[in-house]
Amino acid sequence: MSEPLDLDRLVSPSCPVPGDSECVTLAHGAGAGASARLFEERLWPHLANAALAPRHDGAVLELPGSRLAFTTDTFVVRPLEFPGGDIGSLAVHGTLNDLAMCGARPLALSCALVLEEGLALATLERVVRSLAAAARAAGVPIATGDTKVVERGKGDGVYVNTAGVGLVPEGRCLRPDRVAPGDAVLVSGALGAHGAAVLSTREGLAFESSIRSDSALLSGLVESMLEVAPDLHCLRDPTRGGLGAALHEIARGAGCAIELDEEAIPVEEPVRAVCELLGLDPLFLASEGRCVAFAPEPQADRLLHVMRRHPLGRGAARIGRVVSGRPRVVLRTSIGTRRLLLLPAGEPLPRIC
Amino acid sequence: MSEPLDLDRLVSPSCPVPGDSECVTLAHGAGAGASARLFEERLWPHLANAALAPRHDGAVLELPGSRLAFTTDTFVVRPLEFPGGDIGSLAVHGTLNDLAMCGARPLALSCALVLEEGLALATLERVVRSLAAAARAAGVPIATGDTKVVERGKGDGVYVNTAGVGLVPEGRCLRPDRVAPGDAVLVSGALGAHGAAVLSTREGLAFESSIRSDSALLSGLVESMLEVAPDLHCLRDPTRGGLGAALHEIARGAGCAIELDEEAIPVEEPVRAVCELLGLDPLFLASEGRCVAFAPEPQADRLLHVMRRHPLGRGAARIGRVVSGRPRVVLRTSIGTRRLLLLPAGEPLPRIC
Repeated sequence: MSEPLDLDRLVSPSCPVPGDSECVTLAHGAGAGASARLFEERLWPHLANAALAPRHDGAVLELPGSRLAFTTDTFVVRPLEFPGGDIGSLAVHGTLNDLAMCGARPLALSCALVLEEGLALATLERVVRSLAAAARAAGVPIATGDTKVVERGKGDGVYVNTAGVGLVPEGRCLRPDRVAPGDAVLVSGALGAHGAAVLSTREGLAFESSIRSDSALLSGLVESMLEVAPDLHCLRDPTRGGLGAALHEIARGAGCAIELDEEAIPVEEPVRAVCELLGLDPLFLASEGRCVAFAPEPQADRLLHVMRRHPLGRGAARIGRVVSGRPRVVLRTSIGTRRLLLLPAGEPLPRIC
Repeated sequence: MSEPLDLDRLVSPSCPVPGDSECVTLAHGAGAGASARLFEERLWPHLANAALAPRHDGAVLELPGSRLAFTTDTFVVRPLEFPGGDIGSLAVHGTLNDLAMCGARPLALSCALVLEEGLALATLERVVRSLAAAARAAGVPIATGDTKVVERGKGDGVYVNTAGVGLVPEGRCLRPDRVAPGDAVLVSGALGAHGAAVLSTREGLAFESSIRSDSALLSGLVESMLEVAPDLHCLRDPTRGGLGAALHEIARGAGCAIELDEEAIPVEEPVRAVCELLGLDPLFLASEGRCVAFAPEPQADRLLHVMRRHPLGRGAARIGRVVSGRPRVVLRTSIGTRRLLLLPAGEPLPRIC
């Protein structure tokens, strides 16, 4: 092994978060280190079961004659409307994309709203119209729903939960534990635009208008990818916590290391600029219309070619590979140095989705 | 027709709610008149689709080889813990009961949490432990989940969304539009204990300890009911908005009138006492472990017998019948007078579930 010893020893140290020991903090919602610990330490011990064990974007249940994918997400994004989308379209794209990451074709969505007393009905109607339009564009019905109202100061306008069900066609099996050394790591396009759009709107940055959320439905792209690479090992959309958190989860689930070529990771210039201004790493910024694919090396070039022909995959790139070793994510720079990509533990980017 | 003319004309007048025209109010969340109008006027026009059209507790989707029931509910009950349950067990019972109301056998649940910054981790763990225990007792895995964190003052401890999927066995079809004149109306036990337990805890009433929530899993009771009455027309759990709101929805869905024998409706004495103290009608108070059944008259006696043999149906009673006429709910008193049961439009009982 040519691997330097120091990297082998440095396995995502568990940094303490202030106040972490007693109460829920905003860091618990940021999708990186503290979020993962909250799940592993406080939720998983009680909820542990076989369906939840793969820690994927959704569960796949075996039914007589079919395989059912099932997923849920609550959206608490602030502000409710941002360049390139709003909480309504985001709630549809987010959950349908989670189904797509399971290789499932969507059947139906649910929609459960938590409304804050005092929310303008006009705002509610804009959000619901957008949600309905996104579902219609995807050809998926909102089959069931629920509406609750909480007092002023106990919510923030509207929170939207969408759960989704879909069918996984025969022969597909996309799971973190199928990722293996030798796999190529591809992304479908430039990263972090959703996070940068939401944050720059929130912070009132002057150049906000140049960045639009990448929020989009990935089902079509994924179907064309699975057509040429039916044996794809895993897909993941790098939402909350960004590419960094997604790759850490996959590395843990696969029991492998992931090596990235830093210069190959596509990030658009305006997104980099927002990150520099706010002191953020674009690798931990959410995308809502991108996916990361883990494919056996022999299929990688063909897959990349197909991705680039799809409107949502024009910026697709090969960004790294899976290697044997303890679960971790390593960045290789252009001059050949290597450093660990550590999960930020205490840097909260709350309510990005 | 011996029906008095005045009843035929009085069809649930649409009472104005203060502030209703511009903003979301707490009345929109109370499960009765304003809730129904919010859905009909602001949500349904955008979301309209065949799966949502039956307005039942969940949707039933046709799959190759099976019929899938799908339902969702967000729980925002305050306080989080109350005599007889907490938001965790309630979130499991509520959603599994909605599947049972579709005649479905449960396959899996999702669990999506919205945590407020500052929530004690110990409270979170108690809630999750209770949720997990209720799911385990039901034999249903929490297959997929999500956790979000919102800032202090943008939530209230924890909100829980559970969605559920289940399979509807061949031959079952439980829907409001199957309810028909001649059907008997049965309830599985005394009504309103959940609402009374939550409200009396919230109001700090001295006798609160005598009332416990009826929160319970109805799947077992429903299976034994469907065994003797496979042709049952419809089931509904009278949760938010109570029996009154449930019957109004069914009457509308069926296009029939429902006639109740006021004295036959079971309400326990402590629940009546709380209602008198708070100026509430027990017919609009939530139950979380009761169901209303609409059965063809020839099956009603046998069904009642089977219900009473089940631990959760010991207090089952026949409370009325479905008659032809415009959709409305009519109460017959012991001395033979009849009055319309109107949906309360402006009386909010927020956050009861």
